[in-house]
Amino acid sequence: MNISRLGEFGLIDRIKSGFTVKTKGLVGIGDDAAVIPFAGKDLLITTDTMVENVHFDRKYTKMREVGWKIAAVNISDIAAMGGYAKYALVTLGLKDSFKVKDVDEIYKGISQAFKTYGIKLIGGDIVRSPKDLFITMDMVGECKRPVLRSGAKPGDVIATVGILGASAAGLKALKKYGRKKPGNNTRAHLLPMPMLEQGQKLSGFATSMIDNSDGLARCIIEICKESRVGAIISLGSLPLAKGATIDDALNGGEDYNLIFTARKKDMKDVKGVTVIGEITSQKNIIAVDKNGKKMKVRIKGFEHF
Amino acid sequence: MNISRLGEFGLIDRIKSGFTVKTKGLVGIGDDAAVIPFAGKDLLITTDTMVENVHFDRKYTKMREVGWKIAAVNISDIAAMGGYAKYALVTLGLKDSFKVKDVDEIYKGISQAFKTYGIKLIGGDIVRSPKDLFITMDMVGECKRPVLRSGAKPGDVIATVGILGASAAGLKALKKYGRKKPGNNTRAHLLPMPMLEQGQKLSGFATSMIDNSDGLARCIIEICKESRVGAIISLGSLPLAKGATIDDALNGGEDYNLIFTARKKDMKDVKGVTVIGEITSQKNIIAVDKNGKKMKVRIKGFEHF
Repeated sequence: MNISRLGEFGLIDRIKSGFTVKTKGLVGIGDDAAVIPFAGKDLLITTDTMVENVHFDRKYTKMREVGWKIAAVNISDIAAMGGYAKYALVTLGLKDSFKVKDVDEIYKGISQAFKTYGIKLIGGDIVRSPKDLFITMDMVGECKRPVLRSGAKPGDVIATVGILGASAAGLKALKKYGRKKPGNNTRAHLLPMPMLEQGQKLSGFATSMIDNSDGLARCIIEICKESRVGAIISLGSLPLAKGATIDDALNGGEDYNLIFTARKKDMKDVKGVTVIGEITSQKNIIAVDKNGKKMKVRIKGFEHF
Repeated sequence: MNISRLGEFGLIDRIKSGFTVKTKGLVGIGDDAAVIPFAGKDLLITTDTMVENVHFDRKYTKMREVGWKIAAVNISDIAAMGGYAKYALVTLGLKDSFKVKDVDEIYKGISQAFKTYGIKLIGGDIVRSPKDLFITMDMVGECKRPVLRSGAKPGDVIATVGILGASAAGLKALKKYGRKKPGNNTRAHLLPMPMLEQGQKLSGFATSMIDNSDGLARCIIEICKESRVGAIISLGSLPLAKGATIDDALNGGEDYNLIFTARKKDMKDVKGVTVIGEITSQKNIIAVDKNGKKMKVRIKGFEHF
């Protein structure tokens, strides 16, 4: 059987089942970052990879943007735990003919992101990749109280920080017009701004949290799966980016904002977030459109295979 | 300029110069693993990547061996710091047509290594790679006193734990005969045994240490460069694997044993190591053959580009 039949998430579930973790306080495969209790504190560690022609296309992506983005997606994982990003390692897979100036540009993008978010590069690896460029980043952070995907309770509200669908709409524009029509959406796709400070603030009361890398639908599924609950989403309340569709928001991915749940009483004075639904005790996910029509959430998200 | 002109180590030096680290106790790019002072302890973190047709050839390498080896090379980095390996993350880059049973085999190899060395898998990433399989592992460890590459002093002896050249000789045999003539050398190449416990023991007195991933010559160069010293190596004293040449030992790489320096007085009762040379105050590296003839060390090592 080919992996394309199992799918990315099926493959992760398969691997996860072989490596269960039973140490108290240790969080393994299945959250935005792993949590390691170390010397009385909680250490966070995460990794993300971008591959040429899978995650970016050099036709409309600058190497500096690739550098920024690989940093941003890792920072976003730390943000989703309510953590503080600290250190990173970078691995580059490059072919012989790769230009030194392009390596420099990748590291400039990384450096800009690291200065913006206060992170230090402390190691990595450089290997030959015969065909496609790939870049892997590992990020280490710490947190006071990790916010997991598994803490949502029936009655909790579901909320988003930031708008939805911008990245997907930006990607469509880039595919259609190249870099000729830059705007907020193309910028959101090429240079996402992870919500590190927002995550830290939310960690005080959020019952669960996830970063929106694979679309809102996938976020809700993961929270419901890990928390063993259901959800009802109000599609009319989604804060869509200008030019983005509901499908961009649900299935587009790469918005790198934060989706979280919280008790209603804790949400009173919270600014800059949009409530989009509620956690239920049923084990299904229902979307309600603005006319009150109920439907099942179409679950595409972004799967690699 | 193409990266092939700068070379792997030139590229690393170039990157390193842009990301200097000045925090007390923090060790960044340039050692086997990074050292992060965290909550009063020293945390270690390292990453290594293997790419199909660069680091292994599926013609004579089983997927289970690739899994074992990516674990082993990361463990070896932790060993070279005198550390304890604890946790790991794994990233796989796979094409659509990759077989699920081969994914299972990779994780079986990882699992065998992790059981042998007491490590927990706690996360990772799976991405599509259009052409070549790649596998990246990040490993987290801890240590009482990190042994760096930079502590060697003139007068220190240079010693190796374990034999040299086995992996290079094994690779030659695999290329020539495939898997038809298995032996200790092919086994050393396919299933290296990192020296985690030995590294921990040596950390009590070693002044510098490095894991032998790129050949003895590169090990000595790195220790001399970081410690700002020179070295004299006695080629006649190298503990060569049966069937291996001096060139295999110096330039072959992938032996994954430990090369270290120590004060003479600390070496009296040390068992299972072979003294192969001495640190000097001159800034060059001289090899002396068994007839007493001096020569410059041919410095090839393994460069990716």
